[in-house]
Amino acid sequence: MAIKFALLGCGRIGVLHARNLAKADGARLETVFDPNTAAAEAVARAYSCGVSASVEDAIGKADAVLIATSTATHSDLIELTAKAGKAILCEKPIDLSLDRVRACRKAIEGCNVPIQIGFNRRFDPGHRAARDACAAGKIGKLEQVVITSRDPGMPPRGYTAVSGGIFRDMTIHDFDVARFMLNDEPTEVFATGSALVDPSIGPDFGDFDSIMVIMRTADGKLCHINNSRRAAFGYDQRIELLGSDGMVISNNKKAHELKFYGSTTTEGAEPYLNFFIERYAEAYETEIAAFIAAVRDAAPTQATFDDGYRALMLAEAAVESARTGKMVEVHDIV
Amino acid sequence: MAIKFALLGCGRIGVLHARNLAKADGARLETVFDPNTAAAEAVARAYSCGVSASVEDAIGKADAVLIATSTATHSDLIELTAKAGKAILCEKPIDLSLDRVRACRKAIEGCNVPIQIGFNRRFDPGHRAARDACAAGKIGKLEQVVITSRDPGMPPRGYTAVSGGIFRDMTIHDFDVARFMLNDEPTEVFATGSALVDPSIGPDFGDFDSIMVIMRTADGKLCHINNSRRAAFGYDQRIELLGSDGMVISNNKKAHELKFYGSTTTEGAEPYLNFFIERYAEAYETEIAAFIAAVRDAAPTQATFDDGYRALMLAEAAVESARTGKMVEVHDIV
Amino acid sequence: MAIKFALLGCGRIGVLHARNLAKADGARLETVFDPNTAAAEAVARAYSCGVSASVEDAIGKADAVLIATSTATHSDLIELTAKAGKAILCEKPIDLSLDRVRACRKAIEGCNVPIQIGFNRRFDPGHRAARDACAAGKIGKLEQVVITSRDPGMPPRGYTAVSGGIFRDMTIHDFDVARFMLNDEPTEVFATGSALVDPSIGPDFGDFDSIMVIMRTADGKLCHINNSRRAAFGYDQRIELLGSDGMVISNNKKAHELKFYGSTTTEGAEPYLNFFIERYAEAYETEIAAFIAAVRDAAPTQATFDDGYRALMLAEAAVESARTGKMVEVHDIV
Amino acid sequence: MAIKFALLGCGRIGVLHARNLAKADGARLETVFDPNTAAAEAVARAYSCGVSASVEDAIGKADAVLIATSTATHSDLIELTAKAGKAILCEKPIDLSLDRVRACRKAIEGCNVPIQIGFNRRFDPGHRAARDACAAGKIGKLEQVVITSRDPGMPPRGYTAVSGGIFRDMTIHDFDVARFMLNDEPTEVFATGSALVDPSIGPDFGDFDSIMVIMRTADGKLCHINNSRRAAFGYDQRIELLGSDGMVISNNKKAHELKFYGSTTTEGAEPYLNFFIERYAEAYETEIAAFIAAVRDAAPTQATFDDGYRALMLAEAAVESARTGKMVEVHDIV
Repeated sequence: MAIKFALLGCGRIGVLHARNLAKADGARLETVFDPNTAAAEAVARAYSCGVSASVEDAIGKADAVLIATSTATHSDLIELTAKAGKAILCEKPIDLSLDRVRACRKAIEGCNVPIQIGFNRRFDPGHRAARDACAAGKIGKLEQVVITSRDPGMPPRGYTAVSGGIFRDMTIHDFDVARFMLNDEPTEVFATGSALVDPSIGPDFGDFDSIMVIMRTADGKLCHINNSRRAAFGYDQRIELLGSDGMVISNNKKAHELKFYGSTTTEGAEPYLNFFIERYAEAYETEIAAFIAAVRDAAPTQATFDDGYRALMLAEAAVESARTGKMVEVHDIV
Repeated sequence: MAIKFALLGCGRIGVLHARNLAKADGARLETVFDPNTAAAEAVARAYSCGVSASVEDAIGKADAVLIATSTATHSDLIELTAKAGKAILCEKPIDLSLDRVRACRKAIEGCNVPIQIGFNRRFDPGHRAARDACAAGKIGKLEQVVITSRDPGMPPRGYTAVSGGIFRDMTIHDFDVARFMLNDEPTEVFATGSALVDPSIGPDFGDFDSIMVIMRTADGKLCHINNSRRAAFGYDQRIELLGSDGMVISNNKKAHELKFYGSTTTEGAEPYLNFFIERYAEAYETEIAAFIAAVRDAAPTQATFDDGYRALMLAEAAVESARTGKMVEVHDIV
Repeated sequence: MAIKFALLGCGRIGVLHARNLAKADGARLETVFDPNTAAAEAVARAYSCGVSASVEDAIGKADAVLIATSTATHSDLIELTAKAGKAILCEKPIDLSLDRVRACRKAIEGCNVPIQIGFNRRFDPGHRAARDACAAGKIGKLEQVVITSRDPGMPPRGYTAVSGGIFRDMTIHDFDVARFMLNDEPTEVFATGSALVDPSIGPDFGDFDSIMVIMRTADGKLCHINNSRRAAFGYDQRIELLGSDGMVISNNKKAHELKFYGSTTTEGAEPYLNFFIERYAEAYETEIAAFIAAVRDAAPTQATFDDGYRALMLAEAAVESARTGKMVEVHDIV
Repeated sequence: MAIKFALLGCGRIGVLHARNLAKADGARLETVFDPNTAAAEAVARAYSCGVSASVEDAIGKADAVLIATSTATHSDLIELTAKAGKAILCEKPIDLSLDRVRACRKAIEGCNVPIQIGFNRRFDPGHRAARDACAAGKIGKLEQVVITSRDPGMPPRGYTAVSGGIFRDMTIHDFDVARFMLNDEPTEVFATGSALVDPSIGPDFGDFDSIMVIMRTADGKLCHINNSRRAAFGYDQRIELLGSDGMVISNNKKAHELKFYGSTTTEGAEPYLNFFIERYAEAYETEIAAFIAAVRDAAPTQATFDDGYRALMLAEAAVESARTGKMVEVHDIV
């Protein structure tokens, strides 16, 4: 029996999920909801599903709910869905406020529904292979993690204004990847940032567009993250794991393996896949397949509510560190 | 209006096409036929289509017919479908006999239906980008083409026995790729081969498993092809175009971009995608999309009956050359 | 007229310099000194030069003095040589104590002899090309620098005991490379470290073998350095410069360009060149050629006494930061 | 005791050898001869050796003679030197005429002096590592060799006029590399060529600038060579060995490992080292070291007179094949 999905939110990421649900084994897109009715109807037409007039109606018709609405609504919809006893796949972040996330956690205690947070990078084949190689002992004992994560270009100013700041909006993915790769909890966080791409976002929003982070675990493993809102050569997504016996690097992904050799350049490839939709296309597919399998098998999901909470906690620690110039202990945040 | 497809043949390649048809825009898999009824029914269940009791029934229900049956039946089915006025997407080769192909061509003269031959490599993103770069003048005037094409392992002896020999069965793809990349007709062919992987296929079948070819065009462009039935590191598919101003190489494709660094190896990737199903997954999707577009727009297909005929002609020339030790003029074959 | 060199110190690095001096244009190795007479005589035999019985004698016979003795003697020998009015090429670091370096600077004020510090990496062809590309505007405005620098294995415990700690001994090279690449002064330093390779060096020497650093310049450029005393795959030396219009990476160097493709690995290269002698062989040659040119042309050297001082200042700031968990302002160190 | 060398010929390649002899262990450049006295004197000044007024004088003063004169004089000088009982390192080819080479062979029978032919590529670290990997069984049983060898640009017309044709002048290196890599004798040769870079050399000199070759050994191993007189991206020198268990590729060499990432290209390296002087710099050094060791140890050289003879025999077979369009058996040439 295919799991019936309701999709809440038909923006860019919602449409992506709709397409993936349409071709996923074991799933059926039953209904969609979006306050923008035209957007909902377009998805319904393209993927042959119903349109719901309300979130309650959509949730009622489904076995599982995919929440792809704006961030501010995530916690409310998680609570609503959990109380309805339906499985939840919710885009990251749970909320920009750690307090709100804690309240949400409390609110859904005892609901006992499967919840998966949309940390898509955990499902990227290369990143996953890096973690698997480490878990299989191929690089010995893990000692250092280096995460490079740069967007192709600045988001619109309007987005920056409400994003919650780069640590909560962008680095949050890397905080999750760090935990996933370390297979351990960072206990201390140092972070600093600059506004180099668009210097006006410093005075205007108190935000950065270029940041660097160092984290430590209790046993001394070290992790570096660097972010930039601009990479002229495409979406820059690399992960490096150094262990006692070797290293693995999950490199950037290309559209194809063509190389060009001319009078000024040899071995040149095309710019990298432009952004997350293209770069993590396989990851988005696999994340849904993994969620379907977890719901079907009543198994734990591979990116839990707690993972969402802990990534945000690291983001909070980073904000605090960037403000004070001190390494921040994560339990001070909790 | 989606184009209704009948799929003839539900073997490995048929199933692949069924899945791609299921998710292709502008197409609907209407019915399938296979003399093995269980195979046909399995596909029908998986992709929600009908099952036909005969090829005639299947053809009758469709706007377009995808022929994925065994090679010996291709020509007959092309004739049947063309006379029914339906569009044709037929797996390569048209037939192992040049005479039969000529007869088929004559038989369908005037039917005026769109025909596309399954030369999937023309639709691979990397290979296509190589040709596009050349067409756009990025490497100047084309002078040399080098095609490396090696299977991961020997086919079963039973397959070798009826394959028509390596030139007609395996190199045929590379002959087509050569014509596609040269954007010109080879006029002379030299070929030689050995049985190195399985020496018994020489005496038993008069066949080779390791071959090398050189072709020339009228204006002197040179093209080399090498084939082996065995590449221990996965399916080896590379194309190199040398021009007056530069070179492009379409390299092998990997499952992901993980690299490993250890005490005996650095920069190591995993073995290449194992075989055509994986390596040319995108190409198979794109070939169907291109066929759908050609039928819809009444445009020429990008791999015509004539392309199928000419690739086989080059294979015949290669067979003759390997037999005589002489470079063979292609018009001697015609 | 070739510049006459005296070489002080005939250990591993001294022998390397002797060989490079022997084949350098514009230089002649006149005499060598080492308290270990046998070592000095071996070099003299191999490269046909004299042996001096004292540093004074050696300095007296030379136009230029290459100081390749143990670190503790560098400052004294710099003072001695400068006061003798001879040009100086001195291995890094000037001293492990910032106070001693300041005293040395004061002592040689007014001597007006050319001084070059042995920051060999500035002369590596790849690293140099990275800086040149940046200076030529090829990546636009520089925003981030990422330096990966890992030794192949732990030094002997005896060396660790007297090394001055990883920041002064090993990272000092990377602090210099950071300044060279940033073409600007870091004003703030954060550093943290662990003893992961040999946990005993923590309690025994208060040292780390795995460290991460973040530095900022006044205008907000960010720089990350990571070090490990162990890289199972060879000497790991990479530099990445991210700018507003692109990125350059100076990658690891291999003995040759052989790649291996087998059933478990494709594209595999051999382990990287094992350590600095091999990895920076060209850099050592070029550093001497640059020094010869500077002396000959009375031009500034490309790695000055002040560069040596400032790199040590950053090391001091790192030590302080690792102790306190705070980002340290470099002027607090001065 | 260092071996005393006489260098005959002080052109570009002679000067290269003089510099390498100057720094080689176990050798001393004793004297040079060149009919152009100024050229000889310049080398003598630069490398502190004598100048001889005649080849006889030079040979008389030496233990070993390095012949770097024009091709037409090689055989005569080999005979003269061999009869004087001195060791010989002679640039390739021995002669452009197979008959002359045979006569030379006969003339020096019984002289019993060490002779090494200047097949420098045998000493390239990457190519050598490829052969060693094969010899060590890392790729199993060798089945295919693919040699890509392209010069950066056309030689002057005057050179082409007297070069003996591309097979004897340029491919001769690749014929030798093929024998070296196959570790076996090609028994059949097919070759064809075009004048694509400079079409006038066809009618004017009966020569090609773009060629492709296929060779077979008695046991069926296959070898492909392609040459072009023009590679816009630098000297293109690649060797690929396919075996039953894997493959090795010796790739092009770069000045350094810098990669550039911009808005139109990622992973781009600089053009390859321009030509043989740069590309094979290490090979030239190692070839002299190997010759010195062979002379010193009375061991066989690693590129014998017979190797020179057999490479030319393959060139002759290629000329014949290109003329007739037939695969030529090598014993027909002998």
